[in-house]
Parts: sequence; C-alpha cells; structure tokens
Amino acid sequence: MEREFEEIKRPTVEAVEAMLGKPFKVLDDGFVRVVDYMGSDASIVQAARVSYGKGTKKRHQDRGLIRYLMRHKHTTPFEMCEIKFHVRVPMDTWRQWIRHRTANVNEYSTRYSIAIDAAYETSPDSWRLQAVNNRQGSEGFLDTEQGAKLSVKEKQLHELSRQIYEERLQSGVAREQARKDLPLCTYTEAYWKIDLHNLLHFLRLRMDEHAQYEIRQYAKIIGEKIVSRWVPLVWEAFQDYVLEAETFSRLEREILSALYKGNKDEALKLAEEFGWLTYKEGKLTGNIERLEFEQKLKDLNITIPWSSEK
Amino acid sequence: MEREFEEIKRPTVEAVEAMLGKPFKVLDDGFVRVVDYMGSDASIVQAARVSYGKGTKKRHQDRGLIRYLMRHKHTTPFEMCEIKFHVRVPMDTWRQWIRHRTANVNEYSTRYSIAIDAAYETSPDSWRLQAVNNRQGSEGFLDTEQGAKLSVKEKQLHELSRQIYEERLQSGVAREQARKDLPLCTYTEAYWKIDLHNLLHFLRLRMDEHAQYEIRQYAKIIGEKIVSRWVPLVWEAFQDYVLEAETFSRLEREILSALYKGNKDEALKLAEEFGWLTYKEGKLTGNIERLEFEQKLKDLNITIPWSSEK
Amino acid sequence: MEREFEEIKRPTVEAVEAMLGKPFKVLDDGFVRVVDYMGSDASIVQAARVSYGKGTKKRHQDRGLIRYLMRHKHTTPFEMCEIKFHVRVPMDTWRQWIRHRTANVNEYSTRYSIAIDAAYETSPDSWRLQAVNNRQGSEGFLDTEQGAKLSVKEKQLHELSRQIYEERLQSGVAREQARKDLPLCTYTEAYWKIDLHNLLHFLRLRMDEHAQYEIRQYAKIIGEKIVSRWVPLVWEAFQDYVLEAETFSRLEREILSALYKGNKDEALKLAEEFGWLTYKEGKLTGNIERLEFEQKLKDLNITIPWSSEK
Amino acid sequence: MEREFEEIKRPTVEAVEAMLGKPFKVLDDGFVRVVDYMGSDASIVQAARVSYGKGTKKRHQDRGLIRYLMRHKHTTPFEMCEIKFHVRVPMDTWRQWIRHRTANVNEYSTRYSIAIDAAYETSPDSWRLQAVNNRQGSEGFLDTEQGAKLSVKEKQLHELSRQIYEERLQSGVAREQARKDLPLCTYTEAYWKIDLHNLLHFLRLRMDEHAQYEIRQYAKIIGEKIVSRWVPLVWEAFQDYVLEAETFSRLEREILSALYKGNKDEALKLAEEFGWLTYKEGKLTGNIERLEFEQKLKDLNITIPWSSEK
Repeated sequence: MEREFEEIKRPTVEAVEAMLGKPFKVLDDGFVRVVDYMGSDASIVQAARVSYGKGTKKRHQDRGLIRYLMRHKHTTPFEMCEIKFHVRVPMDTWRQWIRHRTANVNEYSTRYSIAIDAAYETSPDSWRLQAVNNRQGSEGFLDTEQGAKLSVKEKQLHELSRQIYEERLQSGVAREQARKDLPLCTYTEAYWKIDLHNLLHFLRLRMDEHAQYEIRQYAKIIGEKIVSRWVPLVWEAFQDYVLEAETFSRLEREILSALYKGNKDEALKLAEEFGWLTYKEGKLTGNIERLEFEQKLKDLNITIPWSSEK
Repeated sequence: MEREFEEIKRPTVEAVEAMLGKPFKVLDDGFVRVVDYMGSDASIVQAARVSYGKGTKKRHQDRGLIRYLMRHKHTTPFEMCEIKFHVRVPMDTWRQWIRHRTANVNEYSTRYSIAIDAAYETSPDSWRLQAVNNRQGSEGFLDTEQGAKLSVKEKQLHELSRQIYEERLQSGVAREQARKDLPLCTYTEAYWKIDLHNLLHFLRLRMDEHAQYEIRQYAKIIGEKIVSRWVPLVWEAFQDYVLEAETFSRLEREILSALYKGNKDEALKLAEEFGWLTYKEGKLTGNIERLEFEQKLKDLNITIPWSSEK
Repeated sequence: MEREFEEIKRPTVEAVEAMLGKPFKVLDDGFVRVVDYMGSDASIVQAARVSYGKGTKKRHQDRGLIRYLMRHKHTTPFEMCEIKFHVRVPMDTWRQWIRHRTANVNEYSTRYSIAIDAAYETSPDSWRLQAVNNRQGSEGFLDTEQGAKLSVKEKQLHELSRQIYEERLQSGVAREQARKDLPLCTYTEAYWKIDLHNLLHFLRLRMDEHAQYEIRQYAKIIGEKIVSRWVPLVWEAFQDYVLEAETFSRLEREILSALYKGNKDEALKLAEEFGWLTYKEGKLTGNIERLEFEQKLKDLNITIPWSSEK
Repeated sequence: MEREFEEIKRPTVEAVEAMLGKPFKVLDDGFVRVVDYMGSDASIVQAARVSYGKGTKKRHQDRGLIRYLMRHKHTTPFEMCEIKFHVRVPMDTWRQWIRHRTANVNEYSTRYSIAIDAAYETSPDSWRLQAVNNRQGSEGFLDTEQGAKLSVKEKQLHELSRQIYEERLQSGVAREQARKDLPLCTYTEAYWKIDLHNLLHFLRLRMDEHAQYEIRQYAKIIGEKIVSRWVPLVWEAFQDYVLEAETFSRLEREILSALYKGNKDEALKLAEEFGWLTYKEGKLTGNIERLEFEQKLKDLNITIPWSSEK
C-alpha cells in the first residue's frame, strides 16, 4: 500500500510577513530588519513529532508540547526555525554580537568599500557611570553639564577621525589600512542568520541586565518585537521557563527547605557551613554567593534569615 | 621596558596521569580510557583572568572564581580544557553519543575492517520493563525466568547474525555491505575528543535519570571517575550548580512565594489560573507541569497545597 | 534624509514550490522530501553584496559573482540559504549522514515509538564484491545465483529479528532495550536541515565515487534533483569548480610543467626525487601518490612519462 | 582472554616544549605565544588507525598516511590535535581572526579592565596604496615623505583618543562606554584554542596573499615557526597539497588537455565557448576567470594560447 504524504506548504506567519524589510530603529542610527525566515511554532511541533512518532500525536496540544520542550531543554526542534536579519550596529557592539558562533554572517567590508560615515553618538544625558559593585557594568548617569562637555569632545573626535580617514584615502592609502583609526563605535552593517534555538540563547544572554546597554537594545527589539510575533508560543514558554525562571543551587535548595519548615536555625547553620557568614568588624562581608541568594529570596518575598550585623 | 612573561609549563594532573590508557570497564564488554588531556582547574582560572584583566587577580580565589563562572554560565573558560577518550560502546549507544556535535571523532570503520566480534548481551535479570508514565523510559525488570528465555534467544540471534556476516565475507561480499544486518548493539570503538564545557553539557544530559541506562553508565564513569579527578573544583561546582540545582519557572516562583507567606489560597488560585487544576471524576488530571512542580516541592519537603481529590 | 529601504519578500523558487512535500524515492523503501527552504541564488548575491558594498553592484552579474565566490571558496554567502528535508534512510546509512555535524536534526525515536517495520533489502543481483585496490570500497557484483542464497538468508534474518523484537515488546520489555538487536539497516526517519554551504560540502563527499553506494544514492538525488533546481547558478558553479575540478599538488605541478615543455627527462627525474619510481622485480611498485597522479594525467589525455616496466 | 592495552603517555614535542610561553613578536607591539598543546604527528596516525583498524597498520608508514589523509581531505584525524595560544593583536585584526568560528576564545575585557594603552602604529614607509585590480587589497607604498605626515597625524590621533578615554574614566564614566571611541587598531589580548584541522583552514586563508597584511604576519608566524615544528609531517603535507597546490576547474582542464595535445585551435575554441574572449576596441576585456587561468598557466610555464590583441 502506497504511503500517503501530507501536502506541505512553507509556513507563513502573517505578523512577520507584515514586517519584512521594515527597519526597527535602535540607538541613534542603527536598525534591525527581518529579511527572511523559515518556520513557525508549528514547525517545532512537526519536528518534535517525528521524534515522538505518531503515538503521541493526540496527547499533546501544540502549546503544551512547546512548553514541555522548553522546560526540558529539548533544544533540537527549535533549531528547525531559522531567521535572517539585516542589522546596522556600532562595531564595538557588533564584536559582542559575533561572539555567538553558531550563526551565519555577512558583514559590510571596509576593505572593499568606504567605511560607513556614521559613528554612534552619546547625548549629554547618556553618559553612564561605572557601577560600584559590578566591575563590568554601569549604573546611573553623569550630570548633564559634565555630559555635555564629553559629548562635544566626542563629536570633535569623530570628525577628526573621519577627516584623517578621508585624507588617507585621498593620498591613495588602501582602504584596509586607512580605516585603522576609526573609532570602535563606527557603524557597520551585516546580514545575520541564526536558528531559533541559538537565537534564544543569544536573547537570554543579551537581554539580561548584565549585558551592555547597547546590545541589550538590539536584543530587546529582536525578542519583544520580532520573536514574540514570529513564534508566540515559543516566546511565552521562553519567558516562563527561561527569562523569568530562577535556578537554585544545591546549597540554596537546602536553605530554602529549612526556611519553609520555619527552621531559621538550620538555615543559619547551613549558611555558616557554606562559608557564607563571615564577619568583619561586626558586619557581614560581601560573600558573592550569599548576596546572589539574598536577591533570589527577595524576589520570592522571603525574609533573609541572617541580619547584616552581628 | 620589556614585558616579562611568566614561565609556562603544560599543566599536569597527577590523578589523570595515573589513569592514562587504563580502561574503566562499562557494560559487559565496553570501556572508557583517557588517552590525552589539556589543562586543569588552573587553566580555567588563567583564561578567565585574561578576560577580567589584572585588576581582579587578588580578589577571587580560584575556587570562588570557578564557582562564579559555573553559576553564571560563563562557559568560555571551560572550553580551554580538552580531553580525549578511547571508548568501546555498543553502536546504538554510540548513536546517542555522537548526537553531541561539538566534539571530534574517529571511529572504527567497518568498511575498512571486519566488524568487532562482540555484541552487547543482556543477562536474564537485566531486561527492563517499559515505563508507564514515561514513554521513552524503563522501570523495573522482567522476572528472571522470562528474562532467561529472552537472553537465550538474544544469544542465538547474535550468533546467527555473525554467522551470516561471515558467510557474506567469505562469498566475497564487500565489508561495507556485509555488515548491514549486524545487530544495532554490535560494539564499536572510537577516539572522542571534547572540550570541558561541552563535556559537562554531555554529562548533564547523559547522567540524567531520563537518559537511557546504557549511555548513563558511560556518562557516570566519565563524570565520577574521570572529570571529578581531573578538574575537582569544576566538578564540585558542576554538582552544586547544575546536577543538584533546580530551576523554578515564573509560574512556580509565584506559587512558591505565596506558600512561603503561608497563603495557601493564593497558591491554589494561581495554580487554577495556570490551568493546572482540572478534575475528572473528582480526581486531578495528570497535568505535566503540575506534576513536575509537585516533585520539586517534595524535594524541598514542602507540602503540596492541593489535594489530589476534590 | 531618511534612508529608503527596498521592499523585501521571501524569495520563492517555483521549481522547489512544485516539489514541496513530494517524495523522491531512494533505495527500496527510502525517500527524500523537501519540507521547507529559505533563499535562492539571489539571496547569495544579496549577502555577498553587503560585504562588497554598493560600489561593486554593477560590475558583477549574478552568475559571475556566484562563480567567483565558489572559485575562491568565499563560503559565507552560501550559508545564507537553508533547506529542510524529511528523509527515510537505513540506520547504517544515517550514521554516515549525521557525521556531518553542522546541521539540525530531529530523528524518529525508537525509545518513544515502535521501530519502523522495514529493513533495507538486497536483491540477488545487488551483492557487491569487496574492491581489491580500495580497502573501503566495493566493485562488481556477486553472481546472481549465489546472491539469491544470500538474499533468502537476509530475509529470514530480518524476519527473525523483527519477531524477537516484537516478542520482547509483548513481554513488556522497554522499547529502548527491545530494539537493541534490530539489524543496522532498519529504516529510520528524520528531519534534516542544513545551510547550502554545508550541504555542498556533504554533496562533495557523498556524491563521490568513494562514498558508499547507499548514501551516494541519497546525495545524488539531493544534488541532481533538488539543489540543481533550487539554486541553478550555484549548482553550475559547483560542478565546474568542485565536482569536476582537479587539484594538483606542488609535486604534480612540477612534473606537469616539465611535461608541457616536452621535457620527459626532467619529469622522470622529478618523479624519481619524489620517491615515486621504485621497482620490484623490474616492475614499478604501487606508490599511491604516483598512481593517483597517473589517473589525473589520463583524465587530461596526457601520456604517462614512465613505463610500468623498466 | 584479557585484552592488553598499550601504555599511553601524553605525546611531548620537544620543539614546542622549548617555545612554551615565549613570545614571537608580530607587528610593532603584538605577539603570539604557545600556552599549551595536545598531540603530535603521531596522534593523527593513532586516530586514523582506529578508523582503518589493525589490518592496515603495516602498510602505511606514518608520513605516507598523513599525506594520504591531507590529499583526500580526511580531516577528522587532524582534529585530534589541539593548540592554545596567547596573542596580542590590534582589534581590527582580531575581528578578522574571530570570524573563524570553530575555536575557543577568551579575550581581554575592556568592560572589566582599562583598555590596553597601545595602538598599532604605522611607520612613514609602511602606508600601503590601494590596489588597482583588487578592490580589497593593497600594493606598493606611499612615498615616505607623504607617509611621514600621515604617521604624525596618526600619532596625534592616538594620543587624543587616549586622552579623551582617560578623561571619561576620570569623570566616572563606565569603562564599557568610555572605550567607544578608541581607535579600531587598539591592541587587545586573548587566549585562542583551536584544533589542528581548523588551524590549517585558518592558515590557508590567512597566509594567502589576499589576506590583509597584518593578519598574514600572525598567520605566517603560527604556520612557519610553530606548526612546522609541532607537527612537521603535517606541515610538509599541508605545503605540498594545500598551500602550493593548484586547482583547475572543468573548463580549465579542458583547455589544458587541448594544449597538451598541441591543439591551440581547440583551446581557443573552448575559451571562446566559455565566454572568455570578448574584445573591446581590439583588446581582450578583463574577464576574471580567464585572467586567473592565465596566471595558473604562467605558474606552469605554459604559453597562453590567446594574444591580448586581435
């Protein structure tokens, strides 16, 4: 008996069709545009079901299946969707971006062509201060007056760099060498193609508050404006199980367990054992593992069992 | 002023040196041997510190830094260690194994050489029963009497397959074709090389109780006998933050928060909203998300707020 | 001044649309179907031009650009096209297939579902003989009479394996274990998604005459029936610059150069130096590098400068 | 009977041991140091032999086997060797470098630490001119007098950029933002770990004359000073079969064949058919495929069969 094959059409997602080629603006002169895409929520279900065979077809609804896959990190079905963007990004942001290796990239070449005449500019009220507790982050802003001075000098530096760049070109210097002193924040453009699993990984890292402000703006646009409409069931599951989930280590679980029993003494004893409660001049020292756990407790509205002073 | 470079020697880990080339037996005729390795706990610290620069050198102790990296999934420093194994594995187990794509592989070729004359055999007391609640798993064992019958037939089938294989070879049939009807559980051998980050990912998935029994035996040997001695600080962190950690989704966290406040009603209301509490004939239906959460509550010794009957 | 963005639609390739979902039959019970695709010849040009910038737009025609990219192994633009197949393949062929790591895979799971009840069968006239000069290959066929006997036994073995498999299932043995003695050539199914660059790499290796017969049938279908219609300019360039191209080593180039000058003596002297001309009992020994070069010379209709006897 | 396993020690390559940690200087302030390595020529042979089984052990000598693997692009055994470098590189060179995705990277972070106070400087006689025939290349040098002026301005720009950078830091601006206008050629440092197969791929592309001058200097050091001593048999084969090999397309082979027969007319007819011989005002136009073939003919000392004028 001949097997009958279901008819197949390329999945079309109206919301993405409507945004094809249209730029979402990011930063002062950047953008993200969807150029092409493959698949939809249904493609993930389709791929998962080849694994599970026919037997499970009726038991799972699509949403439930997608949530199950996300929860259990069954990542291969998410690789069955693919999306291609055209982006315009400052080069220093782009450097962080392409550290994500599992993607396909074609970037504007300043060996072949004259560098894009635009660098990312900072408005007087956008100079961020060095974070105190986070060596790699920023928090708060410089006062606008001081910021204004920095912005003026930034502008002058951009102009000077460009002028020197063009002078070199006019002298006949090769583009590949002339560009060497352009500022790191010079804009570049690229096609960037990635599968949904790896895109979600990118979003998890780059939408995070620890990611640098600039790349976070791109990640948020991609997540909230694009992925959310392209694969809405995946996006919902991703928020529930990844973005807004919290992981508790073995140590943290033991303390949580004590706290739920109302056993504060045991909680303190455990924390002591873990080396989390060392004091200096009567004050708790800044043990990182403990501080991070305290934050998780706060997020659950659970009272921290140790006081910060002895 | 000339920069002074520290002297560098290849890191040597005595515990691994002592096991180089020695087989750890797995299953009835399989093994895992360490053939070569690169790096140690210290290599991870070394790589992380190039990222963080000199400024942080004194602030972190090695253990603390490794735990920090593990906790925050800063995975690139773990890629700086590499290990190479020689393994002997049933082919069906090997098929699961090589689904891990980020590794280097050289496998014994049954096109070039005569297939290994060994297939994985099942003792009468090792026939596992199909799990009821887990379509892809097993639980418990067939009684030994029935098992004995299956084992006899298994042996006969192995012998017949081999006999047919050799008959074909003697008739002059090409090895690449003669092998086609060997049983899936025929042993193969391979060199398998992988970096530590990807190895941990392999171990997380394959030491898990949902992994098939056979590959789990290999993963446990690699984890508990090899990685634990090669990079003991990493292994400790991996256990605390990955193997014995637990992740709570947005939904679960909301209920946890209500439970800590002692607000059982709110917990029930949330569960209701999430669609977790549907009843059939007065009994809670088997909502998977709820069941998984119930297990996590049990692990924390927290009472489940809904009864299974209405 | 506002930048104007060109309108973008997903590229549609009529020839592929027409074949979507339709199976190309391979072997006795296998198939390949296109399930989805992204991009076309034009997408490669589009991506390449973001690298080269506007300046080059008029200088290259699409065909010329694609040929240029192929010739110079500028592979990233080819990664901008993606294709997804549904395939049915004997498991031993599938094992060779998934050694290509840069692809996305969802395979039918015989842990979740009962194994497909079909194994690849060999007709009496299809038993291939072991190649004499190529340890991993086959050449010619067993005579049909002998073949018929092997085919009967093959059939019996398939039936017995299946019977034992089903017996185990009926005894309650878990699917993941029951399957262990199915023949290697049992059929499996999978979704397989890959970008065009990596697909061409797969085709180069698997359409090659050294690839095993079975996977070659799949590769030929994919290349000649699918890729050739999906991206015809790429396919033409791939044939000219890869499939039907020939590489000459430093040594071979030196001899070629001598031959074109008509200087046979120099050619012989070079071959001597390279250690290619050792004799045993007056006959040239089977130096592999020399034999391979001789074949290349034959392909160019160039007379081999050394005789096989001294 | 118990299987006996051969003793295994980590392979040690004296020439690499001797260079461990010692910097090879590159450009004005860059370097490459070997930090760790795994494997040697012998490891490739060892891995290849697990594929080929015992049967072939005596037939191939190591050198012959390595050459065979290289010639036939059997790349997996080369993946069994791994090497780790500490490099110091201008950021714009580093950007080209990390486009090679199959590698492990830890880079100095200018979010965590103050940017390295060094930018790549150009001496008056090192300003390269834009190549005329190669849009992405350079050829020849600017005269030193003009170069001197550019070098002075370069120095001033470097000083100004650094001064502005430090001013921002002193105002409290976060490092991650303050760095945004540093020149692209600011030095960075990284650990870079890669397997030998992928390293050879890197070297093929980056030692090529079309690679930018700066990265070529790094590639040459890595190839000629390090790889050549680490795995000398591989290096020899790589030169013979890759670096100094030449590939001829289907079209080129047809013409070569005609030329060897002394049939110039057929050669011309073929070139005509391929569209290589179009004339403008009596002169051959610059067909790229033909020009590249002409170069290959010159390399073989073969006379070009068409004159450049009609």
